[in-house]
This record gives sequence, structure tokens and C-alpha cells, in this order.
Amino acid sequence: MKLYSYWRSSAAYRARIALNLKGLDWESVGVDLTAGAQKRQDYASVNPQMIVPTLDDNGVIVRQSLAVLEYLEETHPEPALLPDTPGARARVRSIAQFIACEMHPLNTMIIHAYMKDEMGLDDAAVTKWYMRWTTRGLDALEASLADDPATGTYCHGDTPGMADTCVVPHLFNIARFGVDISPYPTLERINAACVTLPAFADAAPNRQPDFVPD
Amino acid sequence: MKLYSYWRSSAAYRARIALNLKGLDWESVGVDLTAGAQKRQDYASVNPQMIVPTLDDNGVIVRQSLAVLEYLEETHPEPALLPDTPGARARVRSIAQFIACEMHPLNTMIIHAYMKDEMGLDDAAVTKWYMRWTTRGLDALEASLADDPATGTYCHGDTPGMADTCVVPHLFNIARFGVDISPYPTLERINAACVTLPAFADAAPNRQPDFVPD
Repeated sequence: MKLYSYWRSSAAYRARIALNLKGLDWESVGVDLTAGAQKRQDYASVNPQMIVPTLDDNGVIVRQSLAVLEYLEETHPEPALLPDTPGARARVRSIAQFIACEMHPLNTMIIHAYMKDEMGLDDAAVTKWYMRWTTRGLDALEASLADDPATGTYCHGDTPGMADTCVVPHLFNIARFGVDISPYPTLERINAACVTLPAFADAAPNRQPDFVPD
Repeated sequence: MKLYSYWRSSAAYRARIALNLKGLDWESVGVDLTAGAQKRQDYASVNPQMIVPTLDDNGVIVRQSLAVLEYLEETHPEPALLPDTPGARARVRSIAQFIACEMHPLNTMIIHAYMKDEMGLDDAAVTKWYMRWTTRGLDALEASLADDPATGTYCHGDTPGMADTCVVPHLFNIARFGVDISPYPTLERINAACVTLPAFADAAPNRQPDFVPD
């Protein structure tokens, strides 16, 4: 199994955690987003979306991180990334999708580059944009998790799963921007519990073969 | 079954189509996003994300449109919104998620309002932003669909499903902005096939009880 990945990509990070949680043997193929490698014909023919990650499971191509997670769950059910009942599964998916559909897309590398290079915004305006959506998202996530008895050591109960694979990369990303997460104690606690697990630690950006130190 | 919806929301529109495709009996509860009803305590307590849709299935609360679709698929498997094999299911989910995670989030009502009101951008700058991500997204979607023998009358084969529930609302939205979709003949053809089906037609914005004409 091959994962087209980029060390700093949150979306690829989610897929790496899931592959590790499933205990699968996989190989990372680095796609250097800073060099535009995602637009080269060899990669665009695998993924016309020209983003990472893409999973290649012996010729079955899966694009989009949450589709990779669902695919792994269907092809390698144990250990499960989703709980048993439809309502609980929906809860976990809704947390994952809130991060993937509402929070992450607004603050990718490509969006910040466009704002600076093509909209002519200065760093302060981009930071204000970043903080607006990050704060709104973290407030909602914390409210979803803190007040729900279904939250356990991890986002759902005491087994790490699909929601946690999204929370950890997102918190890694916002730590890089210097955001204070102390107003979000539930997220902070869940993140701390996750990052000690080998599946999460081995998926971290600085443990990837294509990692480049700042 | 109740769906908290807003007539113009693309995400709510996806859930409405899915409920109709499943042949379910459901009631629409309008949440007027233009009046800020999503931030009122009565709705925020149901959905701390303060966005639509939210499904209330006799007390089981499901947030996020794609989580609603997966929930309906698990609780009412027929007619199926996803094909049978893991690879095909991944293909359909990746199309749906590309729209939900990469295209839609960048051009919601709230984003445009922020750009105008808080960033001070003029209409031309917002339109340029809109067109940049819309064109990039449509190019990738068309490339994914046009060159793939798995594409049929609909996004996947000859049965409407999860990907179509995302394509139709997105094309409705871009038509509203006057985008020419003739460079995207596969999307145009699929959309035309879908909108003749009652499940899609009945889910259209102007057929909703909370619809307000311009």
C-alpha cells in the first residue's frame, strides 16, 4: 500500500494515522507541494484534484482523506475507527467532517499564498482571517466534545478513531501558528492522550521521510 | 424525521436530496441564516457548529451533511447511495468530499460577507476569489468524471447516489453566480439527468417551505 503524502499536510497526516492505527504496512511517496509536484502530470494523472493524500492500494486509487479512512475501515475493519451504532458513527463522522469541511479548507497553504500574492493582503490581514475561522471552529469543537458524555479519553469513548485522526493534525497545525489552546481543555486533553500513542507519533510530520526542517 | 434546513444552503440541499432518494417521510425546519437563527441558543444547543443541516431522527442528532448521508445509508440501506465494492464506494465518496471539503467551504455566504464587511474587499475581488476556486474545482471534477469508465448517466453508473447529491447543489449555486458550465459537459449532462428526478426536483431551494424569492 502506498500513500502519496506531504509531511506537513494535515489531510495526509490523518491518513497516515489511520494506516498506523490499522497496523498496515505502507510506504510513503512524498509529493512536494512547495515545489508544485502535485501539478505534475505524473501525479495529476493519479489525482486530478492535485492535492494529497492519495492512497494506492494495489491499484485501487482513493482520493480525499476521509474517503481513505472509510476505505480502510471497510477493507480492514479491525481495529475499528468508527463505533458500532449508526448514531455514534454519525457523531464521530460529524466531528471529523467539521474539521475537514469547515475548518481546514479555509487555512491551507494555497489559500494563504493566494491571499498574499494575488489579493495583496498583508500578514496582519491573513492572521486575522486565520484566527477568525480557527477560533470559531475550536469554540464549536470544544462545545461538541466537552458537554457530551460520549466523549472519553478520546473524541468518542476510550478508543482512538476517525475523529481523533482529524483533531491531532489540526491541533498540530494551529500550534505552528502559535494559537493558545488552553481555552479548549477537552481538545488539549484528547490531543495529549493521542500523541503518546505510536500510531499517532509515527505519523507526525517530523517522522516522515520527506520531512524538511524549517 | 426532521431536517433543520435553509432553502439556499448547498449542504442542506444535499441532505434533502438524500432523504428523498431514500423515500423517507421528513419535515423541514427552516433555520434562517440571513437572520442569524443558527446562532440562537435553541439551535446552537442542537448544533454547536451553528450551521445547517442537522438531522433529528427521533432524538438521534446528526450534524454535517455527509454524516447525514452516511447515517441514512446505514439506517435505510435501500435504495443505496453508495455502490457495493470498497473501491467504488471510495470513488463516490471522494467526489462528494472534493465538493464538500475543497469547493464549497471557500464560497459560503458567511465567507463572502466576511470578505466584504471585515476585509473591505470590493465585489470584483470577491468575484475573482470565487472564480479562482470554482474554476479549479470544476476543472478537477470534470477531469475525474469525464475520463473514467465508471461514470454513467450519473456520477457513478446509472443510479443516482452520494456524489450526485453534492454535484447538483453545487451546480445550482454556481449557476446563481452566472458561471458558464459549458466547458464541463460531463457535469452538465449529469446535472441535467438528476434534476428531472423527483427526489432532486422536490429538494430544490424554490420548493422548500422556507423559500424566499429574491
